[in-house]
Amino acid sequence: MKLYNYFRNSAGQRIRTALHIKSVPFEYICHKDLGPGGYRKVNPQGLLPALEINGRIVAQSTAIFEYIEEVFPTPSLLPADPIDRAEVRAFAQLIACDIHPLHIHRVRNYLSDEFNLTGDQTGTWYHHWVAEGLASLEEMLRRRTRETEFCYGDLPGMADVYLTPLMLNARRFGCDVTPYPLLNAVDEACLTLPEFQAAMPENQPDFDRYGPHVTQDS
Amino acid sequence: MKLYNYFRNSAGQRIRTALHIKSVPFEYICHKDLGPGGYRKVNPQGLLPALEINGRIVAQSTAIFEYIEEVFPTPSLLPADPIDRAEVRAFAQLIACDIHPLHIHRVRNYLSDEFNLTGDQTGTWYHHWVAEGLASLEEMLRRRTRETEFCYGDLPGMADVYLTPLMLNARRFGCDVTPYPLLNAVDEACLTLPEFQAAMPENQPDFDRYGPHVTQDS
Repeated sequence: MKLYNYFRNSAGQRIRTALHIKSVPFEYICHKDLGPGGYRKVNPQGLLPALEINGRIVAQSTAIFEYIEEVFPTPSLLPADPIDRAEVRAFAQLIACDIHPLHIHRVRNYLSDEFNLTGDQTGTWYHHWVAEGLASLEEMLRRRTRETEFCYGDLPGMADVYLTPLMLNARRFGCDVTPYPLLNAVDEACLTLPEFQAAMPENQPDFDRYGPHVTQDS
Repeated sequence: MKLYNYFRNSAGQRIRTALHIKSVPFEYICHKDLGPGGYRKVNPQGLLPALEINGRIVAQSTAIFEYIEEVFPTPSLLPADPIDRAEVRAFAQLIACDIHPLHIHRVRNYLSDEFNLTGDQTGTWYHHWVAEGLASLEEMLRRRTRETEFCYGDLPGMADVYLTPLMLNARRFGCDVTPYPLLNAVDEACLTLPEFQAAMPENQPDFDRYGPHVTQDS
């Protein structure tokens, strides 16, 4: 199993974390090592991450996540009850659909290139969607029936796997994350775990090759 | 089971279609009927759709979709094989994550209100992401191992349920959809089915109340 990825790719970080929690070995392939245009031959979407399984390519982190959960069910990253599962997926999808796609590199680049937005303006854009999204996520946790160490339970799951890269990027881009105590508490709990640490950008094999030169993409 | 929705909401249309295919009865509640701020009390995200199940609220169309698929498995909207399932989910997630969130009403509004983009500019924005997304989706279908009437099979599934509202909106906003023959063929096949027709905006109970006055949101 090959994971096409990039140390800074936060959707890829979700998958790395899930694979580490489930102790599933994988080959890490940095998309930049394939050369210009090389990755598009693998994944026509050109987006990261992608998983190669027996020669077939699966794109989109949530599709990959569900695949991993189905094929490597232990430990499960989703609760057993269908409504509980839906609640966890809703938390993760709010990140995957309503926060992440708005602030990624290619979208901010398009805003500057096409509409001449300044760096300050794309920063405002970034901070706006992150703040709106984090407020909704905090409110979701506040409405839980009981407070737990991780988002939805006493062990980390899908919601936590999606949350940590978001919090990392929010801090990196100077968003104020202090108004979200519940999210911060979960994030802190996750980062004490070796599986989450192993998925962090600085611990990926391509960090040394590309890390020092790259400051913008997420 | 209550579906909080709006006739024009295209993420909601995915769920309406899935429920109709599975013959699951549901109460349709138009979020506008709850009055100003009323819907936010139900769903703190303020986004549509949301499903209320035994007093609990589940947001995010993909979380709702997976819930419906788990609780009402027949007919299934996902293939049996895990990699096949992942491929279908990747197609749907490309729509849910990389196309839809960029062109929705609140995002275009933010671009005009905050950065004074003109209607032509937000139109350019809309067309850009739709064209890029549709090209990737067309390429995904082109790479299928066999050509099928629906996206991934001889019966409609998750990919089709996500595709039809996208095609509808792309046409409504004047995107050129002629370069995508495979997507058009699937869309046409879907629209011959009563379950897809029943989920169309003009067949929702709030269409007559709000339809004539609303021209912008999707």
